[in-house]
Amino acid sequence: MKNRQKILGIDIGGTSVKFALMDVLGNIEKKWTIPTDISERGAKIPGDICTSVRRVLGDQQIKEVSGIGIGVPGPISPDGHTVVRAVNLDWEEVPLKKIIQQELGVDTCLLNDANAAALGEMWQGAAKGKSNLLFVTLGTGVGGGIVLNGEVLNGCHSAGGEIGHIPVRSEEDRLCGCGGRNCLETFASATGLSYSMKKKLKECNERWPQVTPPLIFAKAAEGHSAAQQVLEEFVDILGQAIAGILNTIDVEEVVIGGGLSEAGADLIDPLTAKINQYAFPQIRGQISVKKAELGNDAGIYGAVYAHSFIKNLQEGECDGLIVKNV
Amino acid sequence: MKNRQKILGIDIGGTSVKFALMDVLGNIEKKWTIPTDISERGAKIPGDICTSVRRVLGDQQIKEVSGIGIGVPGPISPDGHTVVRAVNLDWEEVPLKKIIQQELGVDTCLLNDANAAALGEMWQGAAKGKSNLLFVTLGTGVGGGIVLNGEVLNGCHSAGGEIGHIPVRSEEDRLCGCGGRNCLETFASATGLSYSMKKKLKECNERWPQVTPPLIFAKAAEGHSAAQQVLEEFVDILGQAIAGILNTIDVEEVVIGGGLSEAGADLIDPLTAKINQYAFPQIRGQISVKKAELGNDAGIYGAVYAHSFIKNLQEGECDGLIVKNV
Repeated sequence: MKNRQKILGIDIGGTSVKFALMDVLGNIEKKWTIPTDISERGAKIPGDICTSVRRVLGDQQIKEVSGIGIGVPGPISPDGHTVVRAVNLDWEEVPLKKIIQQELGVDTCLLNDANAAALGEMWQGAAKGKSNLLFVTLGTGVGGGIVLNGEVLNGCHSAGGEIGHIPVRSEEDRLCGCGGRNCLETFASATGLSYSMKKKLKECNERWPQVTPPLIFAKAAEGHSAAQQVLEEFVDILGQAIAGILNTIDVEEVVIGGGLSEAGADLIDPLTAKINQYAFPQIRGQISVKKAELGNDAGIYGAVYAHSFIKNLQEGECDGLIVKNV
Repeated sequence: MKNRQKILGIDIGGTSVKFALMDVLGNIEKKWTIPTDISERGAKIPGDICTSVRRVLGDQQIKEVSGIGIGVPGPISPDGHTVVRAVNLDWEEVPLKKIIQQELGVDTCLLNDANAAALGEMWQGAAKGKSNLLFVTLGTGVGGGIVLNGEVLNGCHSAGGEIGHIPVRSEEDRLCGCGGRNCLETFASATGLSYSMKKKLKECNERWPQVTPPLIFAKAAEGHSAAQQVLEEFVDILGQAIAGILNTIDVEEVVIGGGLSEAGADLIDPLTAKINQYAFPQIRGQISVKKAELGNDAGIYGAVYAHSFIKNLQEGECDGLIVKNV
């Protein structure tokens, strides 16, 4: 692969689709965004993507693009051809790889958005230089991406890294969007954290005009005892779950992304302590926990990396520009 | 690699060392056992192994052995050279690969015993033909081995598959041998199960002459309500933990070994139901849970497989006799 080769990274989200044209060193040449049109069960999205790429790059520049990587908010079939479903886009069984390849004539690969973010953070972000990591995204839900020896763990049923649905033993009975009970994300997402705070405030007969994670962190920092208790329980559940994952897959690096990671050290420091408290002695003290660095761009970086890496594998060559970080 | 090539599989346990000379199709030519001498911090074990191999095979047949694979009851350093520690053998930092290679002049590879059993069950046992599996051994402790795309997940700190030490949220406070609290194995091992039963009997003011897992299963089958409750809780904790692992690594097959697996369908059936209850909808109903088939021989089969497979990788060839089951 040549240094000057260009890859187009696309990250499809529920409200916008992000695009970035990059070289294989991760330098961004062009970057733009379009709104996601989820009307008609999201049927217009693939066409909108192709139209936008043609408009921004033009036919000449499209010919110079050697690959497209697309991050999608849902599971990808094990063969890599189909988006099995994407709730936010109202998609079921969309053969996106074929659609994009046929429309734009460029080799395309699909990956789940959390997996894309994990690869992005490994390539250009918080886990640069590492090849084994757990990426955890704490937003409306809890998502995860696992990279082992530089490769994404997609799983036999495309559920690899779905750590938000690890069941938590609890006397509570929180219903998860997946239909399960007490999934990790019912406690450890922004939604779960706010729910816990509201519950606690009710117990204390206290009312806040609104309950948001930034406010919970701020109140706890000011010494608000109920907020501190809620955050402690939140970090305990999350840290214990992550420790259990590390005892299972034993990766060297944990990267925390998503909206809640904006709390920075107020989250990362107590979480690191909890993970170490619950981790197997063999790994205790050897786990690096970091805040994600690429924010909303992690997905497009990861999509570019995934395509470049897969291309290298297919061609049976590796010129050292983009390599498995083994 | 040639069909007639011979590999020596060795499985070092706390009470005995098992040996089997096999061809690369898994046919056993010779099989024998010696006692494990754990005196002098287990210093005599490597010498005893070499002496036994020389006595049984003779110098001529040793020359025909193309490799040795050794399963060890403890973590192996990521470079594969050293047994980091093996509590049952009183070993710390034993460079076993070098010792055996120098003494016998045969290329040797080391692997953790649970990982060896996982590979053995994949090659010749319950998971034949699969390449992604979770092997769970329920004995005095709870061990685990994870195989992804035909390769063992050893982990960055040799703790891959240490699922016995996943922390369980509980109001109890059970101290684990690892120093942790409420590790999965304090509930889901034979020891943990017996402890739960004793606790329950005390609550019920009932006494049994002895409390063993087979008796607990037998009493439950007879309709003993306390035994049924204890088993239900045991299966609930174990099934929930396994479901959490599957939501993380999404393998297609779960194989249950160790002494407790002797309960057969009385364990496997309710466990399968629990795993499906707690699993992410995407994988629910698609998980195969099986009793291990190779019993105490899983380790020697896995050790042979590991050596053959590693040899193939090193030689950059694969003649189809032993292949990654991808």
